[in-house]
Amino acid sequence: MALIQENDLILIVYQGNRYLKKVELKKNFHGKGGTLDFSSLVGLSYGIRQGQYEVFEPTLEDMIMYGLRRETQIVYPKDACYICFKLNLNHGHRVMEVGAGSGALTVLFSRAVGPAGTVVSLEKEERHYKNARKNTERFASHSNVDLRLADVSQQEGSEFDAAFIDVREPWSVIEKVWTFLKASASLGIIVPTTNQVSETLRALQPLFGDVEVLEILLRKYKTVADRLRPDDRMVAHTGYLIFGRKVRAQLIGPSANNQS
Amino acid sequence: MALIQENDLILIVYQGNRYLKKVELKKNFHGKGGTLDFSSLVGLSYGIRQGQYEVFEPTLEDMIMYGLRRETQIVYPKDACYICFKLNLNHGHRVMEVGAGSGALTVLFSRAVGPAGTVVSLEKEERHYKNARKNTERFASHSNVDLRLADVSQQEGSEFDAAFIDVREPWSVIEKVWTFLKASASLGIIVPTTNQVSETLRALQPLFGDVEVLEILLRKYKTVADRLRPDDRMVAHTGYLIFGRKVRAQLIGPSANNQS
Amino acid sequence: MALIQENDLILIVYQGNRYLKKVELKKNFHGKGGTLDFSSLVGLSYGIRQGQYEVFEPTLEDMIMYGLRRETQIVYPKDACYICFKLNLNHGHRVMEVGAGSGALTVLFSRAVGPAGTVVSLEKEERHYKNARKNTERFASHSNVDLRLADVSQQEGSEFDAAFIDVREPWSVIEKVWTFLKASASLGIIVPTTNQVSETLRALQPLFGDVEVLEILLRKYKTVADRLRPDDRMVAHTGYLIFGRKVRAQLIGPSANNQS
Amino acid sequence: MALIQENDLILIVYQGNRYLKKVELKKNFHGKGGTLDFSSLVGLSYGIRQGQYEVFEPTLEDMIMYGLRRETQIVYPKDACYICFKLNLNHGHRVMEVGAGSGALTVLFSRAVGPAGTVVSLEKEERHYKNARKNTERFASHSNVDLRLADVSQQEGSEFDAAFIDVREPWSVIEKVWTFLKASASLGIIVPTTNQVSETLRALQPLFGDVEVLEILLRKYKTVADRLRPDDRMVAHTGYLIFGRKVRAQLIGPSANNQS
Repeated sequence: MALIQENDLILIVYQGNRYLKKVELKKNFHGKGGTLDFSSLVGLSYGIRQGQYEVFEPTLEDMIMYGLRRETQIVYPKDACYICFKLNLNHGHRVMEVGAGSGALTVLFSRAVGPAGTVVSLEKEERHYKNARKNTERFASHSNVDLRLADVSQQEGSEFDAAFIDVREPWSVIEKVWTFLKASASLGIIVPTTNQVSETLRALQPLFGDVEVLEILLRKYKTVADRLRPDDRMVAHTGYLIFGRKVRAQLIGPSANNQS
Repeated sequence: MALIQENDLILIVYQGNRYLKKVELKKNFHGKGGTLDFSSLVGLSYGIRQGQYEVFEPTLEDMIMYGLRRETQIVYPKDACYICFKLNLNHGHRVMEVGAGSGALTVLFSRAVGPAGTVVSLEKEERHYKNARKNTERFASHSNVDLRLADVSQQEGSEFDAAFIDVREPWSVIEKVWTFLKASASLGIIVPTTNQVSETLRALQPLFGDVEVLEILLRKYKTVADRLRPDDRMVAHTGYLIFGRKVRAQLIGPSANNQS
Repeated sequence: MALIQENDLILIVYQGNRYLKKVELKKNFHGKGGTLDFSSLVGLSYGIRQGQYEVFEPTLEDMIMYGLRRETQIVYPKDACYICFKLNLNHGHRVMEVGAGSGALTVLFSRAVGPAGTVVSLEKEERHYKNARKNTERFASHSNVDLRLADVSQQEGSEFDAAFIDVREPWSVIEKVWTFLKASASLGIIVPTTNQVSETLRALQPLFGDVEVLEILLRKYKTVADRLRPDDRMVAHTGYLIFGRKVRAQLIGPSANNQS
Repeated sequence: MALIQENDLILIVYQGNRYLKKVELKKNFHGKGGTLDFSSLVGLSYGIRQGQYEVFEPTLEDMIMYGLRRETQIVYPKDACYICFKLNLNHGHRVMEVGAGSGALTVLFSRAVGPAGTVVSLEKEERHYKNARKNTERFASHSNVDLRLADVSQQEGSEFDAAFIDVREPWSVIEKVWTFLKASASLGIIVPTTNQVSETLRALQPLFGDVEVLEILLRKYKTVADRLRPDDRMVAHTGYLIFGRKVRAQLIGPSANNQS
C-alpha cells in the first residue's frame, strides 16, 4: 500500500476542485474547510477523506491536467485516449508524433506503447521542445520517449506502427509521414478549424484510406443523486480529429506484392 | 511488412462501410465495385486500394466492432478508451471487471495493462461467460485475461489497481468491490439510465471520493473536403459513465496510518 | 370543443409513432393494438385514448412533419422556430424568404407574422414552386403568404422587416437581399456545409453586423419514468444557421443621418 | 425608417459583445475602440457601423437577454421559442403559464399569440410577481399579458389553448392544469433535473398523451471565415423540456362523445 511521502505529488480534492501539490513539510493547503497540514499527511495511506478534503495518489490524468506546464494548447485527454485507440497502439509499438507541443499526448503515447515501445516525438520550436522535454521527463510512464528538436521534413524513419500530426499545416507533412509508416498503419491528425479539415482531407485521401473526421464531446453532470443534471457549461470544442490508414494503389495479381 | 495470408482476418473498406472477413481461398467479396477475389490477395501487403476497395490489417477497433460476437449491449470504444484512461491503467496493472458481458471492454483492458498485467473479469451468466470467453480468446491482445464464471459476491481479491462495474444494479456490489481495491484506486461504472446514476451515486459517495458522472459523445463528419458537414445522424446515447477513487475516512494524525 | 368531423386531418399516436390521417368513413387504422375504425371517431372530441391509440387535433408541427409533401430537404422545426425568433418576427411584419423549397419554413413564417403580416417567398424552380404552393395553401395558418415563381435577382422590394435565405449559394444574393431590408433588420441563412458557412461569412460581414453562426441540436429521451435515458440515436445535423443585422458604414455627426 | 431617439433603448455591438443601453444625451459608451457619444447618435438611422461599434434597434432577444431583470433562472430563448412551437401557439390563442419567474417566457408568449391573444401568467411569490410585472410591462410585444399574483391551485379557468408549467414540483399541479385546457391541447413543462423529469412523467402520462422529453442544445461558432470553428465553451444545460397533449380515456362508440 502506497504511503504518502515527503516530496510526493498528491492530489487534493476540495469542493469539487482538484489541486496537484507537492508534499513539502512546511507547507499546507488552506480552504474554507480549514487547513490541511502537509506534515500530518506523511506516512498516511493515499485515498483519505478528512473533513471536506480528500487526498489521492495522482493519476496520469491529474498530472496532465494539473501538473504539466502548458505553453501550447494541449491535446485534451478526451481526445488523446481516443487517438491512442484509433492508432491501435499496443505494447511494443513504435509511434511517431509530429508536433510535441507541451507533451500532453506524448505521455499518453508513452503509456500506450509500454516499456517495450518507443515514442518518437518531433518538435521544431526550441522553446516548446524544452518545455515538452521537462514535462515528459516528469510525467511519462516509461522511459520510452525519444523527443527531438527537429523538423519532420529533415527526419528519416520507417516501419512506424502509427503516427500523429499536430501542426498548423498538417497537409504539408502528410506525404513525408506516409513514408515513415508500415503498410496499413494508422495516422491521426488534430486541427481546430473546419478549413484545416478540408485542406487536410485533400492531401490525405490520395495516400490514406478509410478516412474519418470526428469530434469527441464530453458532458459532465453534477453528482447530486437527488438533483442529477448536467453541468451548466461545458467545453464545446477542442479540435477535429482526422484518421486514416496508409494505403497504396495496387495492381491486381500476386506479381504486385513486392512494391512496398 | 505484413503480408496477407490465407485464413487471416482482413478489413475491407468499400463505399464507407467496413467488412471484417476471413481470407478463404474459394471466397470473394462482391459489391457494385466488382468482385474482390480473396485468392488474389494472398501474398500482397496490407494497406492496398484496388478500385473502390481497400484492404487493411484489422485494428482492435475493427475486431471489437465487426468481429466480436455480441450477446449483450457492449461498452463502445468511445467509452471504453476513456474508461481505460480514467482507471489510470498502465503496464503491469491488475484490473477487475465485474460483468464481462460480451468481452468488448475486456479486450481493451487486456491491451491497456499489457503482457505483464492481469484482467480479472467476472461474468455470472453462463451463456455470456462462454461467449465472452470465445471473444477474448480470439481478440485479446495478450494472454492476461482471467475470465471467471462467478458472482462478485462469492469472490475474494485484494490490491487491484482499478475496477469496473457493468451490471444492472451496480450499487449492490460497490461495497464488495471496494474491498478488492488498493487505497486511492479508481473505480468506473457504466449504466444506461439516469435513475441508475442516482442510485449508484448514493452507494458510491460514502466509499469513493472525487466522484464524476459524464457522457462521451462522438460526432462523425462526412469526409468530402468541399462539402464538409456532420453525418445526418449519430449515436446519441450509450451510457452514463461514473468514476470515483477509493477513500476511507481518516482521523488526523500519524497514529491513523495503519488502518488500511 | 372541437369534434372530429369527416375529412378532418387527425393525428394518431400509436406505440410512440405518429400518423397524420384523413377521416374517411370507409377507412380505418390498423396496428397490433387492433383496428381503429374512422367512422366511430366522427362526433367525438379530439384528445382521446382508446387502448393503445391516441387521437389528437394536429398541430402545426404534425402538419409540417407528417403532412407537408417534401420535394426538398426542409428546414426542420427545431431550426425554424429559432429562425423566427432571431428574425424578430412579430404581428404585422413583412418577411422575405429566398428559396421556398417545400414551404416548411414558409408556414412557420405565416404563423409568426400573423394575419396582418406578409410572407413574400421566392422559389425559382417551377417544380418546387408548385409543391410549395400546395403545401402553403394547405398548411399556412393565415392567408398571408405571397409565393412567387421568381429569381431574387429579378425582384424588387423594400422595407422588409426581415429576410431568410435558403439557397445553395447564399453569398450570391446577399447584396440584393440587403436592399430589400429596413435598416437594422435581421437576416438569416441556412447552409449544410462548413465550406458554405465560410463563403457566406465573407459576403455577409461587409453588409451585416452582429454576425452569428450556430447549430441547434435536439436530443430526445425515452419517456419511461423509471428508466429515463436519451434515445439511442438522434439527428446530428440539419444545417448551420447564420444571422446578421443590416448595417451601413456611418460617418460620425448628425449630417450623416439622411443617407439611408 | 426608424431613427434613433433620445431615451430609446439601443443595442451596441462591440468586439463580439452586446450592450443594451438607453440613449441619454449626456452619456456615452466607452471601449478600447474609442468613445461613442450618445448625443451624436440621435437622429441617425439604426443599423450603423462606426469604427468597431455597431448600433442596432433591439430585438426581442436583446431585450430578454440584456434588458430583462432576472430574479430567477429564466427560460432561455433557445428553449422558449421551441416551447412556443410545441404549444402550437397561434394568433388569438389563450395560453396559461404557471410560474412566471422573471417573465422571459411570458414575453415570448405575448408575441406568439399576438394582439388578439391572451397570456394568463401565474406567479405565487410576490417578489417575483412584481419583477415579472415590470419586465412584461416593459418588454411584452402586445398588451395581452394578464399577470396574476396567484397560486394555480386557487385559480379557475377553462378552454385554454395551451399551458406551460415552470415550478419546482410540476407534478403537483398537472391535474389542475389539465382542467384548464381544451381537449387535445398541448402542455409544456421545464425542469432542471432528471429526478424531476421522472417524477413529472409519472403524473403526466395518465392525463396527457404523446409525451416527449427533450433537450435543446445551441452551439455557437466563431465567425472567422478562414478559421471556422465552434466556440471553446457552450451552455451545456438549461433544462429538460417535457411535452404532452391533453387526453381522456374514451369508450368506443358514438355514445361516448358527450363526456368532455
